Amino acid sequence: MKSYLSKMGLRTPEPPISWLMQAALSRPRLISLAAGFTDNPSLPVAETRAVLNQILRSPKTGRPALQYGSTAGDPALRKLTAEHLQQLDWGGMPCRRPKNQGRQHAVPPGIYSPERLLITSGSQQLLYMTAEALCDEGDIVLVEDPTYFVYLSILQSRGLRARGVRLERDGLDLAHLEKILQSLKRSGELRRVKLFYLVSYFQNPTGVTTSFEKKRGILKLLGKFERAAGHPIYLLEDAAYRELSFSGRADLPVSQDVQQRVTTIPPSTLAAPGTAERVIYTGTFTKPFATGARVGYGVLPEPVFSAVKHIKGNHDFGTANLLQQLFARALASGAHEKQVTRLQKRYARKARVMKQAIAKHFPPSVEWWEPAGGLYFWARLPGNVPTGVRSKVFQTALKNDVLYVPGELCYADDAARRKPNHEMRISIGNASEADICEGIKRLGKELRKLI
Amino acid sequence: MKSYLSKMGLRTPEPPISWLMQAALSRPRLISLAAGFTDNPSLPVAETRAVLNQILRSPKTGRPALQYGSTAGDPALRKLTAEHLQQLDWGGMPCRRPKNQGRQHAVPPGIYSPERLLITSGSQQLLYMTAEALCDEGDIVLVEDPTYFVYLSILQSRGLRARGVRLERDGLDLAHLEKILQSLKRSGELRRVKLFYLVSYFQNPTGVTTSFEKKRGILKLLGKFERAAGHPIYLLEDAAYRELSFSGRADLPVSQDVQQRVTTIPPSTLAAPGTAERVIYTGTFTKPFATGARVGYGVLPEPVFSAVKHIKGNHDFGTANLLQQLFARALASGAHEKQVTRLQKRYARKARVMKQAIAKHFPPSVEWWEPAGGLYFWARLPGNVPTGVRSKVFQTALKNDVLYVPGELCYADDAARRKPNHEMRISIGNASEADICEGIKRLGKELRKLI
Repeated sequence: MKSYLSKMGLRTPEPPISWLMQAALSRPRLISLAAGFTDNPSLPVAETRAVLNQILRSPKTGRPALQYGSTAGDPALRKLTAEHLQQLDWGGMPCRRPKNQGRQHAVPPGIYSPERLLITSGSQQLLYMTAEALCDEGDIVLVEDPTYFVYLSILQSRGLRARGVRLERDGLDLAHLEKILQSLKRSGELRRVKLFYLVSYFQNPTGVTTSFEKKRGILKLLGKFERAAGHPIYLLEDAAYRELSFSGRADLPVSQDVQQRVTTIPPSTLAAPGTAERVIYTGTFTKPFATGARVGYGVLPEPVFSAVKHIKGNHDFGTANLLQQLFARALASGAHEKQVTRLQKRYARKARVMKQAIAKHFPPSVEWWEPAGGLYFWARLPGNVPTGVRSKVFQTALKNDVLYVPGELCYADDAARRKPNHEMRISIGNASEADICEGIKRLGKELRKLI
Repeated sequence: MKSYLSKMGLRTPEPPISWLMQAALSRPRLISLAAGFTDNPSLPVAETRAVLNQILRSPKTGRPALQYGSTAGDPALRKLTAEHLQQLDWGGMPCRRPKNQGRQHAVPPGIYSPERLLITSGSQQLLYMTAEALCDEGDIVLVEDPTYFVYLSILQSRGLRARGVRLERDGLDLAHLEKILQSLKRSGELRRVKLFYLVSYFQNPTGVTTSFEKKRGILKLLGKFERAAGHPIYLLEDAAYRELSFSGRADLPVSQDVQQRVTTIPPSTLAAPGTAERVIYTGTFTKPFATGARVGYGVLPEPVFSAVKHIKGNHDFGTANLLQQLFARALASGAHEKQVTRLQKRYARKARVMKQAIAKHFPPSVEWWEPAGGLYFWARLPGNVPTGVRSKVFQTALKNDVLYVPGELCYADDAARRKPNHEMRISIGNASEADICEGIKRLGKELRKLI
């Protein structure tokens, strides 16, 4: 009477994120440089209260928020989200309109239609359902190497194979992508490739932003191999951190290199001419606002849109209306943008603190990447110093009440290369500035001893 | 380049509930006797506002509500829910303590532990994830015949087979269950049977409540066939409507038959001695409160609990904390119970109106079942009068702006019997009393013509 769980049940062990989140929640003295939590003191408590009071002050507006809605989402929120996205891609605040990036000079019709937009319980749910709608057991998903570790958990749980494509300081290694596609073609496995998963802005875990140029390059390569695959190969663009750019938000000397990247936040792949039918785009309202109110969204081409919507009908037949109305109001009133701006400043400041601490305390043999937005610094130790959960570095850090995400968790199982095990994701999200300083100091002290 | 969706993507068509909900939302003149929406004027707008204001009035209580929590759910809500359940099963308001039902006289230890309790985005999500954790493609799930149609959509989408067990006026036909288990044993398919899905209180769609006696009978039968199956066969008890009993809530002459059933609301299968390890129980806070704030829960034995929790980590790593805190407060303050009582009265009244209207307007050849709680009346037309979406009855009703759920949607595809197609689920949830009268009048007029 042993193995009565399903194959999926057996394939889904405790995901690392649960363990890390639990550790952060249950050890009050721990300095967590691991969690992707929102900065606690910045949480918009009063603002959320004000918006909810507006909604619930009369039965007329309150009742619809407390009633079921439709599976695809609140029509007002879908419309506002579509407009918001178009704004991000084609002009206006909070993201500057990028220039000279080879785009057409008019918004392609239909791309930003609310009809293509699905509201979900966080963008995580969209990632999950997209895998359900497109991938059968044994199919292959291309991912950045390294990538978002919960996405790897989804793939593992569903019996999907991941192939990692090398990530460079300025985004994906296109030559490596082509090489992988070629080799999959040769081995006859191209037909198993359903999508490429790209965390495009201030990537989790490395902080890297992929340029528009490179995004178009990815789409072009995927398109080139479609005939051999026998079906579309989608680009799934995860833009969860997009709005969290530090651009102009910290009155401080950022390095010129970072400055340059910051002022050219690229548009999404939806803006690439002629390829929107191959793009699945997902974003979230909660990462740049309040992570406790889980509302995300996806833009999907048919027939993927309908398949995912129907699957969502089985999951929950619609995200909680109360939360959807919260974001519809917060978007319409400008409260959301105001909070985003506040968070940008806050994170820019915390990133500066982190940068200074790392520069001061980490030994020079540690290579580290400074992000231009988002929550994550990425540090690479010399190759002979592992950082995994069982490593001396991790265990000593834990003993000193400091937690980071071991880099190896962010790499897919991939027989084509040895899994790097000497990196760490260090987050500015949850820790206070003082804790960032103290945490990095402790880590640095330890690294100086161990390296 | 056609069939590039996954098998699941291809197997998941527009679920009937989306279509019915959409019809109700988009046709303002339609009298929907179809939707399982909460009664609109009863929605607790002011109460929800008051609770949210309590939570968000200070950063100390507001921030945790706007921050990520853990995947299993808010500890306070898990504890309150466990206590609430034990209360329902073993005594106290709002459900009277049932007597003489063959139970032990002490609460079995550990059964109502918060550690076994998982908070989900509505109980729907629990149903979905349980299927994921236990069932592989081709596995068999036993269901009541008829049953909750969205559950059938989940099974179809996941490539699972359903076997329907006859439902009688007082619950499941145990002899039929045994016959089916026997025949599955003979055909060697018993090893594919993973669980039995039971909507135990005021069932969707028939309004039937299964007695504690019968529940124990089901558990006993499942246990009897476990050895031949080679693994546990779980009873998944869906108690979504449990709290919506009309008991003593309407000062009106209910029929004696109903009265008797009402005053003996049975405990859940968790209370059955010695079998709790085979019970997965799911309930919801939102059906008896506000359907726009989707919070449900499940009680699960190991290793199913862990498997489902890990799967939830991939779905969304935790239900929105803001909603969880809303229910934790509403439970602790008594606001939830107060609202439940209000809804019970309200639905009891609407059920009386529906009953009187049906008695007055439906032709005598229509058999109908009066519920003792919940949202649904069940009507059976003579066998030669179909009620399906393409039937004359349904289309005429729609033309007259009345919508019901065709009974055939609630039956599994099952080669062992012909699918009944001459029944209807009629809901008191969403329509006003006046609309219930008018809707039933129109339906009755039509039925008198067509029968």
